[in-house]
Amino acid sequence: MKRLDPLIHEPLRLQIMSILYIDEMSTFNNFKTQLDTTDGNLSQHLRKLEDAGYIRVKKTFEGRKPKTYYYLTKKGREKYLEYIKTIEEILKIARSERGK
Amino acid sequence: MKRLDPLIHEPLRLQIMSILYIDEMSTFNNFKTQLDTTDGNLSQHLRKLEDAGYIRVKKTFEGRKPKTYYYLTKKGREKYLEYIKTIEEILKIARSERGK
Repeated sequence: MKRLDPLIHEPLRLQIMSILYIDEMSTFNNFKTQLDTTDGNLSQHLRKLEDAGYIRVKKTFEGRKPKTYYYLTKKGREKYLEYIKTIEEILKIARSERGK
Repeated sequence: MKRLDPLIHEPLRLQIMSILYIDEMSTFNNFKTQLDTTDGNLSQHLRKLEDAGYIRVKKTFEGRKPKTYYYLTKKGREKYLEYIKTIEEILKIARSERGK
């Protein structure tokens, strides 16, 4: 059985990675709208994913207002797909059995 | 977004719960064959699930040899199905997008 990447498995980080995988990018406020968490906690988990090279941060200006966007890196995308494959291996029989 | 039950989310416990959901019961040795872990670690996680009322333990004898079987309780089965539903909500778009 392959290992579930602990950097992704943590619930909030799993949700962050899923949002970025689907939507390709997100702002901090968009994460906040979708996830039930505090600013501090969200920042901490985003930083952890950034430090691991799974996501990257792009800071720009809209007019005078600073805006921060988050994206998956190529590595983050690969790690996320690996994670999905592993958890599907653990759960898949359960899924196919659920119709019983 | 519903919470991922931390009692189930821990990787080894997730695998234990999945095995019991599918196979209905397991011996300690069967867990050991399927999972990459030590006796001590496995015992600890089984105990945690037992204390939570998610699994139950049945001790019998086969001839003179003591045998221990593990089963999901009704509560454990419900909690496992809830967990599956929640993680599928987090991952499902990713799954449907994987064919891209």
